[in-house]
Amino acid sequence: MRNGSPPPVVLAISGNDPSGGAGIQADIEAIVSMGCHAAPVITALTVQDTRNATRVVPTDPALVVEQAEAVLADMQVAAIKLGLLPNAAVAGAVAELLSRYPGIPVVLDPVLIAGGGAQLAEDEVVQVMRTRLVPLALVVTPNSDEARSLAPDAGSLDECALALVALGARFVLLKGAHEDTPVVFNRLFDRNGLVERFEWARLPGSFHGSGCTLASALAGLIARGTEPASATHQAQQFVHDALVHGYRVGRGQPVPNRMFWAGQRE
Amino acid sequence: MRNGSPPPVVLAISGNDPSGGAGIQADIEAIVSMGCHAAPVITALTVQDTRNATRVVPTDPALVVEQAEAVLADMQVAAIKLGLLPNAAVAGAVAELLSRYPGIPVVLDPVLIAGGGAQLAEDEVVQVMRTRLVPLALVVTPNSDEARSLAPDAGSLDECALALVALGARFVLLKGAHEDTPVVFNRLFDRNGLVERFEWARLPGSFHGSGCTLASALAGLIARGTEPASATHQAQQFVHDALVHGYRVGRGQPVPNRMFWAGQRE
Repeated sequence: MRNGSPPPVVLAISGNDPSGGAGIQADIEAIVSMGCHAAPVITALTVQDTRNATRVVPTDPALVVEQAEAVLADMQVAAIKLGLLPNAAVAGAVAELLSRYPGIPVVLDPVLIAGGGAQLAEDEVVQVMRTRLVPLALVVTPNSDEARSLAPDAGSLDECALALVALGARFVLLKGAHEDTPVVFNRLFDRNGLVERFEWARLPGSFHGSGCTLASALAGLIARGTEPASATHQAQQFVHDALVHGYRVGRGQPVPNRMFWAGQRE
Repeated sequence: MRNGSPPPVVLAISGNDPSGGAGIQADIEAIVSMGCHAAPVITALTVQDTRNATRVVPTDPALVVEQAEAVLADMQVAAIKLGLLPNAAVAGAVAELLSRYPGIPVVLDPVLIAGGGAQLAEDEVVQVMRTRLVPLALVVTPNSDEARSLAPDAGSLDECALALVALGARFVLLKGAHEDTPVVFNRLFDRNGLVERFEWARLPGSFHGSGCTLASALAGLIARGTEPASATHQAQQFVHDALVHGYRVGRGQPVPNRMFWAGQRE
């Protein structure tokens, strides 16, 4: 048995992607790469390849909660990462669950649409996120489309992010990859406004699972005690490296190589 | 993008264990540790902690097949690992699926009972395994209880293993950890009888997820082109190391530390 304390536990609440590029596998690999133990709770099964998703089968909300409760009763959970919440019933059940564990930091990746364009979460999920999940999140990680969906009345994207902070999120990391800029600008906001602007070289093409990877790496770093602002920077670096070392395993988008860091960091 | 070919793909067909010790997470971590890409197909959701399983919710058999077909149409799959098949309908659907892809090597971990004693698969699964899955497996990896269930008419455990070879399995790796011996003897059989006997120090206590870890590491090594007999040896070494470096993350059994090799092998 290894010496010292066990690794911190990250509860990952997400859907399964059988291609292994996104979803719970992305979460597990990113969390493990950060030196944490993952505890996977499945919110939906999907039929999906590296191009797009063709079917989403939501898990019964009570079963989502039962899976999570089994973990929360057994282990000390250091952070919770929320990925796909396929419908309002599952999202609401998760919000109710989280309200009973107020001390655990939550990273919310507000997944709505698959990389290939398929709708993964029903429209009503947006309202549950806005009213019940964004307010209890330590960090929310929207891309530009998700930021506009969550804050439809805001003007600029930066104003969308600030609207989510106004709803109660401690930090919002706005991802700029979908914007039409020669480099990628990600921006971190808190209640005082812009905290930091990150600039990344724009990589060719798009990837399957980069958003799940970012949010899960972030949750892993936060579980290890890294400050949120520093953790957002390190998590972006991890994703950048994973994309640079990504590989095309199917006919569609390449997938991040999340095991790149595991070897580097030992 | 990384140079050269993408990693070989292992299709893992298994249940989810929210504790992260066993099930699809064990598969993903072991497969990745062998340098392969995992493609996870979920056969059941379970409510489970590091002590035992309290609920098994089988996936609709058609959805199991749909998940797997999405992967098989998109990627070149180099090996298939079968874990929990919760009922005869799922097991039968998987057998039918595999019969349509006869060229892909299959590792069958005949999961029946959880480490804590809970029944994971319905009784009728044994018959489907015996008649339809064991005959198409490259390697079957029963523990002593599973060997007796699959070959109830055989006398000794070694005769159980030989009975599974007679049913058509190319190799049977009989795991001896549940036997009352001072050291653990695992035995590999093929149609000519005993191929090799492996002796391992008996570690104190029992672990949550060691069987899933062994079968998945084996599938990963086979996907990379390792000969089955050599792969069974390397996979046992991986499990041994993962158990020696295991950690107690919940109140029950410790879990294997499957990221131990990832750092070592880079």
